[in-house]
Amino acid sequence: MSDGRRYIVIDGRFEMQHGAIESPTIAFETWGALNANADNAVLLFTGLSPSAHAASSPADPSSGWWEDMIGADKPIDTSRYFVVCVNSLGSCFGSTGPAAPNPATGRPYRLDFPILALEDVAHAGHAVVESLGIERLHAVVGASMGGMTALAYAAIYPQHVDGLLSISSATRSEPFAIALRSLQRELIRQDPAWKNGNYAFDEPPTLGMRQARKLGMITYRSASEWAQRFGRERNTEGNPHVHFGIDFEVEAYLEAHANKFIGTFDANCYLYLSRAMDLFDIADHGGSVAEGLKRVRVRRAMVIGVESDFLFPLHQQRELADGLRQTVPDVDFGALASIQGHDSFLVDMDQFRPALASFF
Amino acid sequence: MSDGRRYIVIDGRFEMQHGAIESPTIAFETWGALNANADNAVLLFTGLSPSAHAASSPADPSSGWWEDMIGADKPIDTSRYFVVCVNSLGSCFGSTGPAAPNPATGRPYRLDFPILALEDVAHAGHAVVESLGIERLHAVVGASMGGMTALAYAAIYPQHVDGLLSISSATRSEPFAIALRSLQRELIRQDPAWKNGNYAFDEPPTLGMRQARKLGMITYRSASEWAQRFGRERNTEGNPHVHFGIDFEVEAYLEAHANKFIGTFDANCYLYLSRAMDLFDIADHGGSVAEGLKRVRVRRAMVIGVESDFLFPLHQQRELADGLRQTVPDVDFGALASIQGHDSFLVDMDQFRPALASFF
Repeated sequence: MSDGRRYIVIDGRFEMQHGAIESPTIAFETWGALNANADNAVLLFTGLSPSAHAASSPADPSSGWWEDMIGADKPIDTSRYFVVCVNSLGSCFGSTGPAAPNPATGRPYRLDFPILALEDVAHAGHAVVESLGIERLHAVVGASMGGMTALAYAAIYPQHVDGLLSISSATRSEPFAIALRSLQRELIRQDPAWKNGNYAFDEPPTLGMRQARKLGMITYRSASEWAQRFGRERNTEGNPHVHFGIDFEVEAYLEAHANKFIGTFDANCYLYLSRAMDLFDIADHGGSVAEGLKRVRVRRAMVIGVESDFLFPLHQQRELADGLRQTVPDVDFGALASIQGHDSFLVDMDQFRPALASFF
Repeated sequence: MSDGRRYIVIDGRFEMQHGAIESPTIAFETWGALNANADNAVLLFTGLSPSAHAASSPADPSSGWWEDMIGADKPIDTSRYFVVCVNSLGSCFGSTGPAAPNPATGRPYRLDFPILALEDVAHAGHAVVESLGIERLHAVVGASMGGMTALAYAAIYPQHVDGLLSISSATRSEPFAIALRSLQRELIRQDPAWKNGNYAFDEPPTLGMRQARKLGMITYRSASEWAQRFGRERNTEGNPHVHFGIDFEVEAYLEAHANKFIGTFDANCYLYLSRAMDLFDIADHGGSVAEGLKRVRVRRAMVIGVESDFLFPLHQQRELADGLRQTVPDVDFGALASIQGHDSFLVDMDQFRPALASFF
């Protein structure tokens, strides 16, 4: 299997917000080329579950998770920009996380991995940027958790970023989103196969991960999309003799998505990244949201949200845009009418393509 | 323990939408007195989990689940009205359901209970009405699942109802609500203690019920209420050394509600009633929602919804009110600005009291 990943090792003790680890590896992919002035780089942070494979490349021609957005003549035009996407610290697609070996023991970290903060993910991303000889990014970009990480990055490294593009993200998690993610984590933790984090990697807590994924899908989309898409359609493949089985199309859809997710993501990594989203609060960077946002010194920012997103609702995008206006001369705020909820940036290309193109 | 419940037995074979049972018992409570013309009766159907104990009475002075609404000088004024609240067929507070003994075997029905429809619940309620010598109800009333049952009742027994009051309900379930309830059921069914419905009653599937209750609480309230109420407050009683434990106040709140629910409701009954909500569709009464609603021939109706309710959203209340206008001369539609979401009718008395008073 071809692989477009590159890796750096951050040598020595890597200080985190809540501990430290030794010499983590960070995986990343790149598209396009850095220009002579090294001022055309775009750093992309991902949501909770994607890898660094945001788009296809000669080294890995398989479609990436943002294939429609990144490439020649696409909104993030790789004939003009050098795009870098990092696999988050704490994830399991090449970067060090709870599933990776702890050099001190030779065994996987599992729950010995320090509590993860998105600031740690940002620091690890910056190590990649430095390794590539980039002094100042054209922009840092992220959606969902990636938007929080991008915001942390811009607050921590104001001298290294020109622009910020935040999509369907927030200055911090509200209790409704925390409650949903807390329950997702509980579903995984209460699967007996989780074994307090000590499951064999070939016997993961499949049941809890499937349940968490179903709850995730419910929060990533919107009621109006599903009303249009499924209505009250019955699933004809269900067995009517199984009590409380799959009767409706929407139930079959959730089942299919849960099945697809299984085996692709490490359960402990999921728990760490999910918790990192709850813990993130830009107010930690200045005592309040307003003061935290003042740390951001980009020249321009764009904040995009979606009307049907109830996980990262529009009022959180407005709060972010308004806060950024304290210090950022050029802030664009876009409220898109996509009906696919939080996931719109992955599917509603008709609305997102022009929005991103206008930023780039 | 004092008990205000009364019971009827519906003698003989009780035909249901998807089967039949023998001589079910239906529990109910009443407040006030039937007048000489027998035209002051109000029939109240409940949501999924309440019992018939909607308000205190001399026989049972404990507070009921709608204590603020039912009583002398309250919006449903028991010095004027004779109020009857039935425990739903399929529930476990005195009425026959999956936890009750099957006369054919002497053992509890469990999953041998026929698939439940809200029409069955309405039929059982009508048997209570008949037993009390009531020919025509002043009104049939219900919130949430109870609103669906009240609507079914009005469609099935047009000659027996003068008024309909539907609160935070719908003509049918949309796929978003179905998905949430489907996942709740899955959490119960996948608890090994459920044992395919054959758990010992003193060893119920507590884990699955707790998880389902937490998901329920998330869907019954609203993000804005929780943002105001909890913000990002930390829970100081949590153990910081427990990974992914209770850090935030909102997590402690869910935990407390889940604990309170345990032991109060039979798991199989929960599954049956939950599924009955998914299956309900007024279109079954006429081929389409519009035709189904034409069966309702009350003189007046009131439809109340809440802006922050995303389980039974406001557009479903509008659809119901607009549909009723085909045949009902006097239809009132009220959109309340309560922030407590679907549960508002249980907690936001300042908004609901005057709304109900205007109907009664």
